[in-house]
Amino acid sequence: AVINGSLYGIVKAALKSNEFDTILGAIYGIDGILKENFIDFRNDLIDLELLKNTPGAYLGSVRFKLSDDYNDPNYELILTIFKKYRITDFFYIGGNDSMDTCLKLDHYFKHVKANINVIGIPKTIDNDLMACDHTPGYASAAKFIINSIINIHQDINVYEKGRVTIIEIMGRDAGWLAASVKLAEKMGYGADLIYLPEVPFNIDKFISDVKRIYERKRKVLVAVSEGIKNDKNEYILSLRTFNSNDTFGHLQLGGVAQVLAEIIGTTLKLPVRAIELNLLQRCFFNVASLTDLNEAINCGKNGVKFALKNKSGIMVTMNRVNQEKYKIKYSYTKLSNVATLVKPFPKEWIKDDNQIQDEFINYLEPLIKGNVKDLKQNDFPKYIHR
Amino acid sequence: AVINGSLYGIVKAALKSNEFDTILGAIYGIDGILKENFIDFRNDLIDLELLKNTPGAYLGSVRFKLSDDYNDPNYELILTIFKKYRITDFFYIGGNDSMDTCLKLDHYFKHVKANINVIGIPKTIDNDLMACDHTPGYASAAKFIINSIINIHQDINVYEKGRVTIIEIMGRDAGWLAASVKLAEKMGYGADLIYLPEVPFNIDKFISDVKRIYERKRKVLVAVSEGIKNDKNEYILSLRTFNSNDTFGHLQLGGVAQVLAEIIGTTLKLPVRAIELNLLQRCFFNVASLTDLNEAINCGKNGVKFALKNKSGIMVTMNRVNQEKYKIKYSYTKLSNVATLVKPFPKEWIKDDNQIQDEFINYLEPLIKGNVKDLKQNDFPKYIHR
Repeated sequence: AVINGSLYGIVKAALKSNEFDTILGAIYGIDGILKENFIDFRNDLIDLELLKNTPGAYLGSVRFKLSDDYNDPNYELILTIFKKYRITDFFYIGGNDSMDTCLKLDHYFKHVKANINVIGIPKTIDNDLMACDHTPGYASAAKFIINSIINIHQDINVYEKGRVTIIEIMGRDAGWLAASVKLAEKMGYGADLIYLPEVPFNIDKFISDVKRIYERKRKVLVAVSEGIKNDKNEYILSLRTFNSNDTFGHLQLGGVAQVLAEIIGTTLKLPVRAIELNLLQRCFFNVASLTDLNEAINCGKNGVKFALKNKSGIMVTMNRVNQEKYKIKYSYTKLSNVATLVKPFPKEWIKDDNQIQDEFINYLEPLIKGNVKDLKQNDFPKYIHR
Repeated sequence: AVINGSLYGIVKAALKSNEFDTILGAIYGIDGILKENFIDFRNDLIDLELLKNTPGAYLGSVRFKLSDDYNDPNYELILTIFKKYRITDFFYIGGNDSMDTCLKLDHYFKHVKANINVIGIPKTIDNDLMACDHTPGYASAAKFIINSIINIHQDINVYEKGRVTIIEIMGRDAGWLAASVKLAEKMGYGADLIYLPEVPFNIDKFISDVKRIYERKRKVLVAVSEGIKNDKNEYILSLRTFNSNDTFGHLQLGGVAQVLAEIIGTTLKLPVRAIELNLLQRCFFNVASLTDLNEAINCGKNGVKFALKNKSGIMVTMNRVNQEKYKIKYSYTKLSNVATLVKPFPKEWIKDDNQIQDEFINYLEPLIKGNVKDLKQNDFPKYIHR
């Protein structure tokens, strides 16, 4: 939701510095560089205020893994293109894979003694970058999830008849997003069970936990990370066949919530519903966090600041300077501390495998503070298009 | 999202009239009457301003079909309870099935010469009640859908690589909700194909339409009502096996979007994603329509007005008095004109089976005007609980 905030921050700071005659945006990441597919933020008419309030990477995105072999011709091609456009500073917004791209480029540029600063700008809704208190994008996704839980709760409480509701939340490797459901408790809307990838998922225990809670309350709300795994490190989503019942002998098409719903339906014979929050989690700007947006902008601005100090091979970081009153210090870390690594949800904040501790509320609460003002057109948000 | 607006309207108008010593709310509909499970709006402390801004029926809901046989003991029981509580006027908020309940009760009360007015208050996100221009709840659901489409569009445009995205929208019998996607076109975010239950769905034509659009644009956005059927009147959702490919020989678990996604994936071998907007459509109050909320309130208020004029066996209706400047006249219709009937999406607003005509934009636009002000607690909406 706020990735363009960082782009806005980079462009604004670069313009303000008066140190750059040209500010280019590569369309579809590295692919845009290789194809010289650029836009020019000085010359092209781009409404930066709209850009700031637009979800979905304005410049586009790509899944492109640079080779581990620096003899790969892409490296020389990138350098040639950078020289052609007189590029002195390269900013790349993304998560641990994007930081791997940055790390490789920085190594290569240093190896060939090209004087090009490579600066990573953190962005991932997964909140799983090392060396950061948190990452831009996470809090806005969490805010959509919390709003969804609150509204879903209102809906499922309408019927007296009990039901098990299983809500699937993004997060392949880390459970930060699913854990955010915990915050709804403060508003009186908790989930009974929260499952994160950090804890091996035990199907038998899941069934007995649901049974126990259902017998007491007649309603069970389960929040689950898409990436939960069993103790053999296999994704539950990939367990397409189970032995407990013949009806399990077919291909599962839905996500993990659907798999769990079928387990409950078949073993406990309870009415059950699977809800996948799907990609709205990462793009529903209407309920994005203003704090998150402002921090995304500041990450971009600080990236330019560090570049102007000739830093390279770094990623901008945010960390709390103070536990009592929320305040962020922008700093940086070596890309090698971040690239391809995953920061898991802390084990000490998980109790009994499926309960999140209150410490996490204190962690998350300041991050989601404030609502963005979406620019309206006929009551709908107005976004910029490329 | 706005069902409690009607409840608020009823209570407010009843209080203001000074004609009622008691205003009772039955918990879980007819079931609450049979069990004498009531709350008292005069004595119980209920924050009506919060109630108005709370999604999900505050009084709860129930699926309870009254018998066609008036000798069924429930009728006499209801009458006894109504007499015991000196109930003179009965208001029931809901769709065509709820109106069937009202119709039967009204017939019975008239038959036994009980002087009890039965008033239906329209509410259904499906927008499929006869004798109404539209129904409370519809516009707010449409607004969530339009916001979702806009944000999803921003997300899927991030990648250059093409994909077919299929979005499943509620609507078993009528396509009003799926059609609302059309309005996003005004903001620059159309769907390429929109499928409603009103048009028999042809799988071969669907495949060739997707293929044609994909070849031209490399991205296809499909919006589909959950209730689409083939020309044999079978739900596409129920077509669990297909003959075109071996991999089809298993049980489908997802919704209709998942079924269509598999058809595209298997026949055209295109990357495809199914998104189910799920029950957030009907409860995500954060983006509800203020016009819709106000109309829901007015439907409740007018119900009381008609009851005080000793009308019975009616449902409150809304209809436009003016095509140029949007203005609603509240009136009523006989319950028999509404009960169990379905108002389909007009055939003349559908072109080529999958294109919605601009006339529909003119129809929908005034209904979604204005945003509700959700009462905030820590930036989240604050709702009332029972």
